[in-house]
Amino acid sequence: MDSVGIVETRYFRFAETPDEIVLESGKRLGPVTVAYETYGELDGDRSNAVLIAHALSGDAHAAGRHHPEDGHPGWWDNMIGPGKAFDTDRYFVVCSNFVGGCKGSTGPGSINPATGRPYGLDFPMITVSDMVKVQKALIDHLGIERLLSVAGGSLGGMQALEWSLAYPESVGSVIPIASTSRLSARAIAFNEVGRNAITSDPNWKGGDYYGGSAPARGLAVARMVGHITYLSDEGMGMKFGRRLQDKEAYGYDFSTDFAVESYLKYQGDKFVERFDANSYLYITKAMDYFDIEGRYGSLVGAFSRIRAKFLVVSFSTDWLFPSYQSKEIVKALMANDRDVSYCEIRSLYGHDAFLLETEQQTKLISSFLNNV
Amino acid sequence: MDSVGIVETRYFRFAETPDEIVLESGKRLGPVTVAYETYGELDGDRSNAVLIAHALSGDAHAAGRHHPEDGHPGWWDNMIGPGKAFDTDRYFVVCSNFVGGCKGSTGPGSINPATGRPYGLDFPMITVSDMVKVQKALIDHLGIERLLSVAGGSLGGMQALEWSLAYPESVGSVIPIASTSRLSARAIAFNEVGRNAITSDPNWKGGDYYGGSAPARGLAVARMVGHITYLSDEGMGMKFGRRLQDKEAYGYDFSTDFAVESYLKYQGDKFVERFDANSYLYITKAMDYFDIEGRYGSLVGAFSRIRAKFLVVSFSTDWLFPSYQSKEIVKALMANDRDVSYCEIRSLYGHDAFLLETEQQTKLISSFLNNV
Repeated sequence: MDSVGIVETRYFRFAETPDEIVLESGKRLGPVTVAYETYGELDGDRSNAVLIAHALSGDAHAAGRHHPEDGHPGWWDNMIGPGKAFDTDRYFVVCSNFVGGCKGSTGPGSINPATGRPYGLDFPMITVSDMVKVQKALIDHLGIERLLSVAGGSLGGMQALEWSLAYPESVGSVIPIASTSRLSARAIAFNEVGRNAITSDPNWKGGDYYGGSAPARGLAVARMVGHITYLSDEGMGMKFGRRLQDKEAYGYDFSTDFAVESYLKYQGDKFVERFDANSYLYITKAMDYFDIEGRYGSLVGAFSRIRAKFLVVSFSTDWLFPSYQSKEIVKALMANDRDVSYCEIRSLYGHDAFLLETEQQTKLISSFLNNV
Repeated sequence: MDSVGIVETRYFRFAETPDEIVLESGKRLGPVTVAYETYGELDGDRSNAVLIAHALSGDAHAAGRHHPEDGHPGWWDNMIGPGKAFDTDRYFVVCSNFVGGCKGSTGPGSINPATGRPYGLDFPMITVSDMVKVQKALIDHLGIERLLSVAGGSLGGMQALEWSLAYPESVGSVIPIASTSRLSARAIAFNEVGRNAITSDPNWKGGDYYGGSAPARGLAVARMVGHITYLSDEGMGMKFGRRLQDKEAYGYDFSTDFAVESYLKYQGDKFVERFDANSYLYITKAMDYFDIEGRYGSLVGAFSRIRAKFLVVSFSTDWLFPSYQSKEIVKALMANDRDVSYCEIRSLYGHDAFLLETEQQTKLISSFLNNV
């Protein structure tokens, strides 16, 4: 299947009167810049737009390449393109970096207009609702009144759910994948470990490290923990098992013995090159705070307001956002007599499966979008 | 049920000729001090001795109190005492801190006789086999030729398994609880995260921090990660859920919001007061290295040498040492036509269940020991 080809990240500077938006916390933020990309063409009646929401470490670059030699296509390039799940021959696909991020949209590493220096921890707390509010402004800016669909995996799925609740008239369908209406205590706990690893790094300096050394060791440890939660026990057993890394026998020292150690260290080190530790703090808090039941009293009550059709997808070995959480969403939708399809895909890839299980997701999503 | 009452930790200085033992790695260590406690009385023919092996953060103090006002009874006080699972009216129970530990036995925080300073990373790598070798010397010292049983949970269960393989004539029965013949890739990965958290702490200084500030932040993060793996998703949901800690609404800042965060931080902070970070490094490596299949070619082949009766216990929600690992041990024993009982206890406590599921473990162990 083809790629969308060469794409470009664009920037939209979004601000309410005079120059700020009001966040869920009550605090104000502005101006807000939104980095976004689009793939495919918006049709004449502006009815074919699909918004893709990314997960913790994602960005606006969901498909294609930034230049012909670009070795890193967008993070969901296997799913977005001509003939793919999100078929750019048919749909106008939009993906933006969420507010609080570090990939072109306003976040804690952006310049605080009040001080002329990076916000750091002066950046206000962001919620999933705030992310969606900013996306709505972008969609308005693009002249789209109603989205054909909003889709995303993990935290992206939370944003998709939030769209259906915050703007029920503006979204025709929702595809939350490997997602949840609220994090479990265990998932919050893992986020807290990651945050502690970062804030324990002396380079973190209360978040005021811009221009100096970043808290790379702490962020790497946070990423290592995260990566374990994205994989499954079975998958790690298959991929690594107890295989040694570049040695025939135990080293009996603290150098790397096992391939799985080497993999995690590599993932940790790679991540610090491309991600801002403060954004990691803010985004994980946004995940922790998301709680549809908590906000609306119950899932069933919350979903009484929605109009969208739903395709809910979960993965058999995802233990971070387990299938039981997707099933709770499905049940609450059914209790409201809403139009919902659900599929648990058997996969060894754990939570990461939403990035990897191309074939089965493509079948489900193509057919679902066909019928919206 | 009664307690064993007031107990005392004793010390045995153990050394081979001239003053060292040869470790599995080929390195030498000596002299070796072993901290141990005993409960109950050794009978006339010295046939009623039960060795208890502790887990990562345990110590020799398995039962009773060190003084009348002692608020902290031994770590398995619910299981060891008059009328308890390990009935001190009938059995002579021995528990020792393993070599490499930091609770009285020789470990990386002990004085290196070659330098007069704490070993730090000059301490040689320790394996489960080394731990058991030192325990054997203690048992010899106590005049016990054959143990009625060796029991332990988690890493303690690994030591019990190792006893059955290393000294088949010296052990009548083995009770590995919530244990495994080898760690999964995922369990190794979690250990590696903990080690990285410690070694990333600038206070760690390559292990040479004694006399200065300990790498407390790193060790706390390691313990936080560990704690999540000891609990179950269901158990954390029941115990904490999304309950807030001392607040009615989100703080929208980086102070503690959720009870589960508060719990983990408390566990992390408490741990650094009582545990040496270098011991954490060495002990987790010993766990990673333990691999019966790797050493003997196969589990079935390994267990052809054993003589002991087995009681294997696992817990339904233990995802760190999952039941499938215990079942592999049981199958390999059955393939050798060995006498093995197995029970998977239904529990919400995850891996921690071996410390908490008193009633069911007591029934199983009492009846098993009765028939040895």
